[in-house]
Formats: sequence, C-alpha cells, structure tokens
Amino acid sequence: MKKFVYQFKEASQLDCDRRALFGGKGANLAEMTKLGMPVPQGFTITTEACTQYYLDGEKISDEIQAEIMENIAKLEKLVGKEFGSLDNPLLVSVRSGARASMPGMMDTILNLGLNDEVVVRFAEKTGNPRFAYDSYRRFIQMYSDVVMEVGKKYFEQLIDEMKEKKGVKLDTELDADDLKALAEQFKAEYKAKIGKDFPQDPKEQLMGAVKAVFRSWNNDRAVYYRRMNDIPGDWGTAVNVQMMVFGNMGDTSGTGVAFSRNPATGEKGLFGEYLMNAQGEDVVAGVRTPSPISHLKDTNPKVYAEFVDIVKRLEDHYRDMQDMEFTIEEGKLFMLQTRNGKRTAAAAVKIACDLVDEGMLDEKQALLSLDPKQLDALLHPRFDEAAYKKAKPIGRALPASPGAACGKVVFTAEDATDWVVNKGEKRVVLVRLETSPEDIEGMHYAQGILTVRGGMTSHAAVVARGMGTCCVSGCGDININEEKKVFTLGGKTFHEGDWISLNGSTGEIFAGELPTVEAELSGYFGRIMEWTDKYRALHVRTNADTPRDARQARTFGAEGIGLCRTEHMFFEPDRIMAMREMIVSDTVEKREKALAKLLPMQQGDFEALYEALEGTPVTIRFLDPPLHEFVPTEEADIKALAKDMDMTVDAVKAVITGLHEFNPMMGHRGCRLAVTYPEIAVMQTKAVMQAAIAVQKKHPDWKMVPEIMIPLVGEIKELAYVKGVVVSTADKCLADAGVQMKYKVGTMIEIPRAALTADAIATEAEFFSFGTNDLTQMTFGFSRDDAGKFLNAYYEKKIYESDPFARLDQVGVGKLVKMAAELGRATRPDIHLGICGEHGGDPSTIEFCHNIGLDYVSCSPYRVPIARLAAAQANIKNPRK
Amino acid sequence: MKKFVYQFKEASQLDCDRRALFGGKGANLAEMTKLGMPVPQGFTITTEACTQYYLDGEKISDEIQAEIMENIAKLEKLVGKEFGSLDNPLLVSVRSGARASMPGMMDTILNLGLNDEVVVRFAEKTGNPRFAYDSYRRFIQMYSDVVMEVGKKYFEQLIDEMKEKKGVKLDTELDADDLKALAEQFKAEYKAKIGKDFPQDPKEQLMGAVKAVFRSWNNDRAVYYRRMNDIPGDWGTAVNVQMMVFGNMGDTSGTGVAFSRNPATGEKGLFGEYLMNAQGEDVVAGVRTPSPISHLKDTNPKVYAEFVDIVKRLEDHYRDMQDMEFTIEEGKLFMLQTRNGKRTAAAAVKIACDLVDEGMLDEKQALLSLDPKQLDALLHPRFDEAAYKKAKPIGRALPASPGAACGKVVFTAEDATDWVVNKGEKRVVLVRLETSPEDIEGMHYAQGILTVRGGMTSHAAVVARGMGTCCVSGCGDININEEKKVFTLGGKTFHEGDWISLNGSTGEIFAGELPTVEAELSGYFGRIMEWTDKYRALHVRTNADTPRDARQARTFGAEGIGLCRTEHMFFEPDRIMAMREMIVSDTVEKREKALAKLLPMQQGDFEALYEALEGTPVTIRFLDPPLHEFVPTEEADIKALAKDMDMTVDAVKAVITGLHEFNPMMGHRGCRLAVTYPEIAVMQTKAVMQAAIAVQKKHPDWKMVPEIMIPLVGEIKELAYVKGVVVSTADKCLADAGVQMKYKVGTMIEIPRAALTADAIATEAEFFSFGTNDLTQMTFGFSRDDAGKFLNAYYEKKIYESDPFARLDQVGVGKLVKMAAELGRATRPDIHLGICGEHGGDPSTIEFCHNIGLDYVSCSPYRVPIARLAAAQANIKNPRK
Repeated sequence: MKKFVYQFKEASQLDCDRRALFGGKGANLAEMTKLGMPVPQGFTITTEACTQYYLDGEKISDEIQAEIMENIAKLEKLVGKEFGSLDNPLLVSVRSGARASMPGMMDTILNLGLNDEVVVRFAEKTGNPRFAYDSYRRFIQMYSDVVMEVGKKYFEQLIDEMKEKKGVKLDTELDADDLKALAEQFKAEYKAKIGKDFPQDPKEQLMGAVKAVFRSWNNDRAVYYRRMNDIPGDWGTAVNVQMMVFGNMGDTSGTGVAFSRNPATGEKGLFGEYLMNAQGEDVVAGVRTPSPISHLKDTNPKVYAEFVDIVKRLEDHYRDMQDMEFTIEEGKLFMLQTRNGKRTAAAAVKIACDLVDEGMLDEKQALLSLDPKQLDALLHPRFDEAAYKKAKPIGRALPASPGAACGKVVFTAEDATDWVVNKGEKRVVLVRLETSPEDIEGMHYAQGILTVRGGMTSHAAVVARGMGTCCVSGCGDININEEKKVFTLGGKTFHEGDWISLNGSTGEIFAGELPTVEAELSGYFGRIMEWTDKYRALHVRTNADTPRDARQARTFGAEGIGLCRTEHMFFEPDRIMAMREMIVSDTVEKREKALAKLLPMQQGDFEALYEALEGTPVTIRFLDPPLHEFVPTEEADIKALAKDMDMTVDAVKAVITGLHEFNPMMGHRGCRLAVTYPEIAVMQTKAVMQAAIAVQKKHPDWKMVPEIMIPLVGEIKELAYVKGVVVSTADKCLADAGVQMKYKVGTMIEIPRAALTADAIATEAEFFSFGTNDLTQMTFGFSRDDAGKFLNAYYEKKIYESDPFARLDQVGVGKLVKMAAELGRATRPDIHLGICGEHGGDPSTIEFCHNIGLDYVSCSPYRVPIARLAAAQANIKNPRK
Repeated sequence: MKKFVYQFKEASQLDCDRRALFGGKGANLAEMTKLGMPVPQGFTITTEACTQYYLDGEKISDEIQAEIMENIAKLEKLVGKEFGSLDNPLLVSVRSGARASMPGMMDTILNLGLNDEVVVRFAEKTGNPRFAYDSYRRFIQMYSDVVMEVGKKYFEQLIDEMKEKKGVKLDTELDADDLKALAEQFKAEYKAKIGKDFPQDPKEQLMGAVKAVFRSWNNDRAVYYRRMNDIPGDWGTAVNVQMMVFGNMGDTSGTGVAFSRNPATGEKGLFGEYLMNAQGEDVVAGVRTPSPISHLKDTNPKVYAEFVDIVKRLEDHYRDMQDMEFTIEEGKLFMLQTRNGKRTAAAAVKIACDLVDEGMLDEKQALLSLDPKQLDALLHPRFDEAAYKKAKPIGRALPASPGAACGKVVFTAEDATDWVVNKGEKRVVLVRLETSPEDIEGMHYAQGILTVRGGMTSHAAVVARGMGTCCVSGCGDININEEKKVFTLGGKTFHEGDWISLNGSTGEIFAGELPTVEAELSGYFGRIMEWTDKYRALHVRTNADTPRDARQARTFGAEGIGLCRTEHMFFEPDRIMAMREMIVSDTVEKREKALAKLLPMQQGDFEALYEALEGTPVTIRFLDPPLHEFVPTEEADIKALAKDMDMTVDAVKAVITGLHEFNPMMGHRGCRLAVTYPEIAVMQTKAVMQAAIAVQKKHPDWKMVPEIMIPLVGEIKELAYVKGVVVSTADKCLADAGVQMKYKVGTMIEIPRAALTADAIATEAEFFSFGTNDLTQMTFGFSRDDAGKFLNAYYEKKIYESDPFARLDQVGVGKLVKMAAELGRATRPDIHLGICGEHGGDPSTIEFCHNIGLDYVSCSPYRVPIARLAAAQANIKNPRK
C-alpha cells in the first residue's frame, strides 16, 4: 500500500524528490530535522494524498484518515503529549506546503486541538488563562474562516463590539475573561452560520483542516497564480502537521522572521525582526513594532548565537540565501521554517556572484539559481529604494511597460520633442488621453508615458514596451483637459511642467520627483551575463525593425537580428503614400513605378540597420501583412490618393472595398503577396542587396551575408517560385555591382503545412525561422485577437493553464516545431534553425528550443538578457554535445 | 545511357508501364503492332524525354536529337523510304500522346518531310500533283500554326483570297496550280511573320515539331485541363512519329473513325463513319458528309471484314469499348490509333454490365473501368437524347446544379408552392432575379431554378445543389420584371405559365418543353451499385440536416448520417427568434429560458431525422458557427428583439457589436461555445436523447445509439469538459425515462492540434470524424472565403495543381489525418474513424481514406453513389485485410 503520511524524521531518510512529495515546507522541515536543528516535530501528508483526494471526488479516504491518526499517535509518543488530553494536550499547527511557494493558498491554522475542556486545563497548566483563551478564540476564528469559509468579518465585528463595551482600543487590552467570553460568542456565531456546533473532537478538527488545505489548492487565486507562474495544476499540495510551540508564553518567549542576507540589496548579514511575547501573526499584523534581529544579540545572546549558527549551517547546506521563521518558547529556540528567500533582481545577481566568490556555488549553479524573468527589472531605470518605500501613490493604473520614470508633465508629443530637443529639458513625462502613431517621435523623447484610456495592448503600451520606455496606461481616474494642458488625479491638479513619477512595473503614479536609479548593465549583472555566454549553446538574436531598437538589443548582447519586419517601415508618413499608390495600381507598370519610390527609402533603412548591427547577421523578412492594413480610411486621405493616382474617388474606394477579407489572418498576405505581385519581392530584394553591397564597401572588414526570409510559406513550390524571383534579382544586383557576396534565402515556418512538409521545404530553404505566433494561432485554430472572448472561461475551467501565446505549447505546437526541425535537418543537415515568435523570449520555450537542437532564438530587445540566461540554464541542465 | 526513343516494335517488347513511358497513343500503337495489325510503322519519343526537355531549360539535348535521328534511319530501313529523299520520300505525322487523354495539347502535324524539292517529285511519283501540293500547303499551314504560332487566320485569308480570285466556293474546287501557288504564298507569309525561310531540312522540321509537342504540355489549356482532371504536371507527354499513309490518294483510299459500341447508349455493335478520298481532318471539318461505317460493308467488303475482325480482336484484347482511327490507302487498311472510347455515363454502366455478361470482365474489373465522378449525371433527370440534339438554346449561363428541368415559368417561390400544392401543376421552373432563404419551400417544389444574378456559390446554386435540383444561375442576358411577371431572353418573351427547359449540367436555357428522362437508379446503375457494396470495405454515410435530404441519401444507399449540422435548424424563421433571445441573454437563467423554447423544436427535428434513417446511425454535431451569424442586421428585427427581451435597442446593438470578430473562422465557435455556455450543450443533449428515447419506443426493433459529436476540439481537457456536460445530461435523461440506451460521444478532428494530440483526445472520444474543410483551412493557413483572391495566381504559376478544398491534400493535410488515425487507434483500438468534410465525396480522397484504414466516409446525398463506387475501387486495388 502506498504511504501518504511521513514523520519529519522518516521524510528526512527518504531517497526521492522530497520537494515533489512533501512540498517545499515539508521537505525543509525534514531537512532541518536531519541536520539536528531544533524543529517542533510533526509529520507531512504528501502531495500524492492531495491528488488522491481529488481522484476520490474531494474526499479524504478512510485509509488516509487512518494513516494520519497513526501519525498523530507516533507524534504523541515522540513529544510526550496527547491529542485531546486534558492533562498534557498536544496542540498542532496545520499548514499547506506546495512544491513551489504559492501565495493564494490556505496558509495556516494554529492551536488545533483546543476545545472547551482542553482550554480550561491549558489555562490552569500554563498559569496563563489570557494566553489560553486568546489561543482558543484565535483557533475558532481561523478554523471558521479557513475551513468553514465563514467570513472573518463576523468575528472582527464581535471583537470590535467587545472593545467598545470595555472602552478599550487594542486587542491586547482585553483580559482573559473578555477573551473567554469572545470564544463563547465565536462558537455561537459558528453555529449560527454553519448550523452545527463548533467541533470539539480534535480528530474532526484535524480532518477538516487537512481537507481545507487540499481544497485551497484549487481556489481561484491559487489557479490564477499557477497560470501566471507556469505551475502545473496536477502537482497538488502537501500538508504539514506540526506540534505547536508558543512565542506568546511570556517575556522569555518570542517569535521572528529573518533572512540570511538582505533580500532588497543582497548585502551579506542577518536581516530580520522579532517580537517578544508574541505569536507569528502579531509580527505581520503590525500592532507592535518588532525589533531588528540584531537586538536579540543584546537581550538574549545565547539564543542569538544559536540562531546565527543555525543560519550559517542552513546557508552552507542549501547554498542559498535563507528566509526563516523561528519561535522562542520560554528561552528555547525553535525553527519553524526555512526556505530559499525571495529577493529583488538586484539582490539576486549580487547574491549569485557573492556565493560564487564565497566558494558556495560554481558559476553554473549560480546561473541556475536565477530566475530569468526577474532580470527584466534590471534593464530599466528604477526608483531609489528608500525614497520609493516612503512615497505614497496618488493613483494606480495598468503596468503597461516596466521601469521607473520621473519628469515634467507635457501634454503633446510635439511638446515632448520640443522640450527635450530645443529647450534642453532632460526629463519629460508625456500624459495623453491616448497615443496614436503620430506620437511616436515624442514618445521616444519621453522618460515615461501615462495614458487615460487603453489597456495592456493599447498603442501606447505596445510601442512603449518595444522602446523599453516606462508606461502606465488606462488611468480612468484622471480628469484631463488636453487643450488647457491640465489634469487632476488623487485630488491634485497638474499643469504643464509639474513633476510626476511613474512606476511602469506596478502601475503606480506619484506626484513630484521621485529619484530614480539608472539600469546598471555592468557590475554584478554584467558578470552574470558573461557567464551566460560561457555556458550557452543557443545563439540569441533580436527582433528589431529600427537602428534604435537594434542598438539597444546590441547593448543587451544580441548577436544579430533574427527578424526585421520590413512592413513597419512602410507605415511612416513619407512612405505610406507610395505604398498606397502601389496598392491601388491596376497594372504591373504602375505598381513598379510606385515601388521604385519605395526602393531608395527601404534601401536606406537597411543600410542604417546593417550599420547598427556592425556586420552581425540580419534576417530580413519580406512584406507580410495584408494590403488592406495600408489603405487610407479617412475621406481626405482617399481623395489625396485618388488625385495622386489620377483615379476617381469611387475607383479608389472600390479597390479598398475589394481588399476586404473575411479572415485577414488567413488571407492574402505573406509570400502570397509575392506570388501575386512578384515585383514587390523584386524591389525588396534590390533594397536588401544594394544596402548590403554599399555597407560592405564602407566596411571591408565586415562579412556581409544578407539573409532574406520569405514569410507564410505552406508549400515547397510556393517557396521555389518566390526564391526564384529573389535569386535572379539578387544575382543581377551583384553582377551589376561587380561584387561577390554570399546571401541566404530561407523561410518562416509558421503554417502547419510548412512544418508537416519541412523535408520538402528544406530543399529550397537555407534556414528556417519558426514564427510561433502564427503557428500557434493556426495549430490551435484560434486567432489571438478573438481568443480573448473565451480564453478566460478556459482558464477558469482549467482547460488551459497558461497563455499559449506567451509560453509555447510544447505538446501541440512544439510537436510541429520538433517535427519540422527533424525533417529539415534530414534534407539539409546544416540548415540553420531558429525561432522568432514572441515565445523566443520565454524561458521555458527557450529551454525547449535548446533541447530540440535549434541554433538560435530571436526575441525583442529587452528580452535578450533573459534569453541569454535561459539559454545558459538549458545547456547546463542538458548539455549539448 | 537512358533510352528516350523506341520503335513501335521495340516498345511492344518492353516490360514496363508502357502507358506511363509512351503515353496512351504510343502504347496502343505498340500493342497493335505486337498483335500483328496493319499499323504504319514509326517510333515513340518517351514522356521522360519531355521531362528532360524541361530539365534542360526547354531544349532537346543533342543526345536525344541524335537518338531521334537514329530512329528515323531505322524507320527508313523498315519501310524502305528515305527522309528528304526525292525518289522515295518518307513523310511522317507527329502527334502528342500523354498518359491520359488530354484535349488542349498540340494534336497533330501531318505530311512532315515535304519541302520544295520533295513535293515536286512526290507529285510526279503519285501522279497526283493536286494531292501533293495540297499536302504541302497543309503541312506549311499546320507547321506555321502549331510549331511557330503564326495564327491560322493569315493562311485562311490567303485561301479565301485565292477562292475569290478563282470565283469558287469550296477548297476542293481549287486545282493543283492554285494549291501550288498557295504553298508559295504560305511560305512567303511564314517568312514575313517569322523573319526566316520556311525550313526545308526535314530534320529541322522534325525537331521543331517535337519541341512544339513538348511545349504544348504546358500551355494554358493543358494546364487548366490537368487541374480540372487531377492529372499531375510532371507526367509529361510522349511524341509519336509515324509514317504517313494517305486516305486521299483516290477513290480506293479513305479514312474514318469508329467505336466498337455506341458511346452514347452503350449498345453493342460498330458505330462510326468514314469518307473516301479524304484525310482525317476532312472528316472532322464537315465539308462533306461522311457515310455510316456500315456502308463500307457494301462498298468494300474485304476491308470491312478485316476491320470488323480487328475491332473484335482489339475489344477482346483491351476488354473495353474501343475508339479507333483508320485509313485506307489504295485499298489497304491501316490502323492509326485505338483507345478505350469515351462514353456517356449511361453507356458506361451498360457497357460495364455487358462486358461482365460477355465474360470479358469480372465484376471487379468492371467496377475499375468506371469513373466515379461520371455517375453524377445518372442521378438527375436528363433530356431525351434525340430531342436535346435538335434543340437550340436561347441562352446560356452558369451550370450551377446538374440535371435537366422542364416546366412552366413562375416568378415567386410562393407561386411555385401554390401551383404545385394547390393547383395540381406537376412541373414549374422558378425564375428569379436571385433567391433568398425565404424561397426555400418554393425551391423544393420547382423542377428547376433560373436566376439572373449570382454565381456558382450564390444562394440559389448552393441550395439547389444540396437539394439535387437543376439550377442555372447568373444569366445576365435576361431582362426581368418580377412584378409584371415577365422576362425576355434571346429575343423571346416569357410570361407566367410559359414552358421553359434548363440544362443544369451545361447552363443551357431552352424555350418550350424539352422531354426529360428521369434518373434511373435501378437497371444497369442498380447492378453496379450492388457490386460496389459487395467489394467495398469503407462504409458510406451522408451529410444531411433534414429528413428530406436524409431520405434522398438513403435512396442513394447511404448507411447513416455522418454529419448532421444542428445550426441549420436554428435559421428557420420560427426558431431564429428564440436563438437570438439566447444570444442577447446576459444571465444563465435568461439563456436557459430561451434554450427551453428551442428544445422541443430541436427534439422534433431529431425525431424526424431518426425516423428517416430507420435505425441506421446518426451523428449529430453540436452548435458550431459563431453566434454573430444568428443576430439580426435589419433595424426592424433589432427593434423586435429588443422589445421581446425588454432591452433598449442600444443594448441589443451593443451585444451585436460585441460579437464582432476579426477572424470569425478562428473565433468563438464550435465547442468553445459549449465551454463558455454549457447550457447550450445541455439543451442539445436533451434534444438528442429525448428524441432517441421517443423513436426507440415507437420502433422497438431499431437499435438506437445516438452519436453526439463535439466540434472544433483542440485539447483533451476541452473535450473532457464538454463531454462531462453531455454525459451527465444524457444519463439524467435516460434515468428520468427509465430507459437503458448506449450512446457515443466523439469529436471532429478539424484543428491541427487535435490531430497532433489525437492520442490524448482518444482517451475521451469514442469516434473521430475528420472535418477536412476546416482542417484544410488551418493546415494551409488560408480561409476558403479569402483564398479566391490569390489561388488563381497559384494555379497559373503551377504552385498548386488542384483545389485543396475539393481534393484532399494528401501530403500535408493527409499527413495529419493519417497521424491522427494512428495515434487515436494506439489509444483506443476500436475507435470509429470517418471523414465528413466535403472531401468525403471525392474519389481520390476516398481512396486515401480507404488506404489509411478509416471506417467510413460521409458526403452530401448526391455524392453517395460516387463514394460507394470509389470505395469499392479502392478496396479492389488495395484489399483490406
């Protein structure tokens, strides 16, 4: 028979993945027991019991109940106390403990085992009736709230009434009799709400508490947290049942929390606080001010020394910064918990470096200790920690693009540009109702952007994230008058030039000037990044369309461009007209005339991009979006186009109407444009080749090898046709220039059929770049724009646990990617393979890409350091031969 | 070295797929040579030479040219004549001959080898200068037209001028000198157009002609024909070079064509015609009227007897009806060609049966001899052959739905119904500007439908094809006044009650009453269908939503329904309101109230369907389309809905706007509706189960096993969730009724991810039905509605050769289907597998489905006989163990 319950001691002997079976808390309690540290003893009910509970239709089976009670008996024997005994009662705490730390789940029930009879003797025995009745009323309150889901508020109201009656203000001013009366009132409230008496049988109490922990694994907050953090829903949680020790038994008792290093800065040294004569929740509640941990040295040097010793041993043992809870019961130290401490990104990189320098970790271990996603915080300016702690936000909206910004308010993008470029103002924050494409330049010059309307995917949000500029969006509380250049928020009025500060990582808005700290890419961060390059096998490129983004990505360590979207260039005001002329042309000749206007512009763009990339590879993707994205919608623009093309307005409108598509995602786009209008591919090939030739001449030491990528290919003959156009044009360009230069033609794999027939496609394609955005849409059969309407229901019903557009679906889409990689290599062993969808910056996807043997990932500039770390971690875990 | 050219005799000895290598014509010439029949000797340049020609950049390589000339030498030796010789010139014909008969390619060049010198001696030697110069001028004309692409019209103009000058009307009235002069004029015309002299070197002439044949393989008409007939573009054509024999050498010479059986009716007996003193083209040109072949018996009994003997031997040899060309040169019979003859559908089934009765074929061979697609013509009424031959159409439009129809003109659907139901009129034809959903009932009662507007996919066309009703659509030549009930076409005016006849297979429109012949499903056709059932392994079901369609399909032999689309029922006027109420409901309760109205209607529909199916299986697919397809667009309907739901008009409009989707194909539809609104699935499950229970009670001998199909599944948990809803509802229905009944829950496999994860999906699905319409869209990444904009360019550029929505793409989509079938069976060996996309009625797709081991195909009612035959053929070719 499977064993579902283990004493800490038993658990510490077990040779298995303890964290998976006992959860983090249980595994660490077992470990501390093994290390001989003073841990109040108890037992862990495994995560498998949780899984079994769900398999059994949300019931704890009789077998598991029996096993739990056997372990209560063992614990009784071990500690010499008895569950439900009047003379020597065993009281326990019940805590959840999943494999990964998970806020949102049920946390703790304390003092379980108390009942009407036990509490009387407990009061007598401890000689502290106030303590006993306080413990009892706390237990009733916690149990009612957590196990029976009777809201806390009913009990708090009773406490408030009692305080009012007694004319006191603080809970601590209530005496033993008051608390005894409250316990009675609580039980009555319980009965009124539940329809049954408060359970007096400790076994019944215990099973209720265990069940509540299991249940909490699937509450909404826990499910949401798991989805946000990629934690599988089938892991389940363990339950720890542990003998109570009391920090509130008098002046020689106490409780506290401590970190072995400073979690904000990473500085070495004990960091924490404690309260004497208190239980854990008092420290958190903030009724009394705790003392810094260093004071313990003076007031209780023996305990302090013992604690310091334990901390050192724990750090040595876990080789990481520890976050610990302890209790002192009548002068004796007990360790209630230890775990690897959460820390800021800055602390994380410093600690990783320090641990290497201290010889505790090697470089690989240090890299594995870091969370790639956390790095993002280091890439943007942030607020000075001290000033930020003190500041109070005047408003809060959507954290649309991370980082901290501080500057003078301007109300138009033109002003932002003008103030910075002409007036020498260093820092402005652009405040707008919403932004639009004309605002781009001003957005570049602003430190931060604050909008009244628009969500996480609004224009402001998307553009700001691309630029790495701090942005807070959708602040509906703002009352703005853009004409008068004034807005109000949180009761404050702001005029042009007033100071404001934004936290794009949290969505907080502050009045005034909050000092910021610039992103520091050298130092500890730089050292970590050097290590990543040493240990990774995957190359990291960036998705960038402009020299600015490209340069940014280069500072973050990008080794080239994996995806340059050429269409973004066409949206700029001076080009869109030529683009529109091309679209409404009804003959090849007219189209070529319009394309001829675009050629020098596009060539110039590519030259600038090649310059920024300094000879590293650049993959240029040919025109992808459907043409209707470029046509004018405003009557005036339509008229201008008609005049320009010597057409009637109706004729232009007819062309625009004709471009309408039922499903634009699956319409006339990608290489389908090059098949119907090969002259577009001709122009783009000329632009690429002529730019490369020009840059090569300027920089003879760079080895220019243009990479042309054909999008949306689904069939080999389609690629062969477009490649034919590209090759004949490119060869002519080279011949005309009298230059010899290698160039590559490859394709996006973003259509399921391309993946399925990748062996054929590889006969023509010299590289594959997996376009996992489209591939995900088509493999799942839902469009990203429309899926919002139903995906929430899918999360709620636990059908999907993570957003397939953020984290690659390895089961379905990944199967296609793997298949295509294998088929492609079978045909062309040296085919160059990469990924350029947004997934390219997601650590779990990067690990997948490493494992299936891709050559590179390409991601947005601000994701490059994350990708470098994730790639190193993947190769450390599973080294590539 | 590869051999590219074979003498007929050599070819006849070769052990290979001769048809593939030599084309049909070449293979049969070799075969006749082998059989010792009088065939003018020659040689065949293989299809591989054609492929090589394209590989070599549209050049005939020196090696192949040399091989051709070696074979000319062999031929010279064999027949004792010499190419280019003045004394005994070898003249040859050059003809294309592909593996499959292909109109649209270059056909024939005759008399090649003539030049200015040869013709002189030829005239002398034959003693027939008129014949010699006529042959020469024909050769120049054909060569210029076919090889050099100088239009025929220039030469015809010269002939006309000559006739005018001579004051004659017929070509035959021109004498030898006239023709000699014409030959000179033709050469001058050639030089004027080409800039070079007409080639005098027979070798140059020959190479030019061979090249022209190869080139014609890829001309537009040939490419189009291949696409329409699923002929691969890489087959290439062979070229036959054959010694000329002359039917125009005097009164003992002649030429003719004959069939071994009547190609229109299948009646046994020689059928054909001939002309004495003529070349082949004269028979076709229709200048003189040919004699029926039977006359030959009287005028030339010896040749006739020899021919009859050859025909019998050829039929015995090929075991099929033969289509032959022959020439009599000075009393000697030559066979120029034989091939299996094209025939009408009616002739095809009769001949197949007769050949079995005559012991020439067994049943399997007879089935293989039929073209499944041809059967369609037998399923609809057709015109009496004799009357049809004589009739002249007054107009022509799109052949929207096949068959023949004849009836009195009515101008409204109401009249159609009224005339048939109340006035006892048997036959009416509905003539409308265009039809709309309200016309459905009247369309049911009409024999045929004629519309002024709308294409092949207009409402009228789609509905008529579904009903199997004849329809001609988009006749823009009609001038109609619907109010006055009158229209004009071809100069004729038609009033209500006037007779009109339509041919929906050709698009022809006739004035008056053209007698029709009803479809005959018994007789020869019935016998063939019985054989198909004997030899097929695949079951054939139908896609039907109404009892009428279901009954139609049953008469065609459908063994059940593979796809019943429940949403079609919701569009009917009495239901759409309840559906709309459901959609605009903002609470589950309101939605359930609206669904409760739909329940009895849907249950009634299912009962009627179950009755029509007589206990055979019915797969019912749950609601699939996005909800916005149901909402009102007319202001009046919106107001009515608002009033009905006690909502403001604005609120209703807001709901409608909110339903807008960017890519509806990939939006909130299919099982996604059941996940967000499980109450819809509950209602549909109740309707299915309650209907099945009621019908089972009425027919205790039927074994009702409802099959519920969940559409658009992409993930196992999604199916598990919806199945959970279905199962709990179904079980409750059964428990409430106190009935025990098996039922099955399965899924469509129509999303790539479902195919990729079919092993997981099969843990819940008891059957898979491949929805190849959507699967094709998503695998190719283009929507059927939008692909029209670029697919023509793809056909022109030979990227795709057939419409992937008509014929399953076996390479890509088929790979997914095969993978899913294998994965599904690995999990659940007895999983029931079928296909229900439109591909289910396509013969090549059916063969594929058979080969990968599916259990059934499901297609539209009129495709059922086609599917039965295709399934039998597949199993005969590749028997299932």
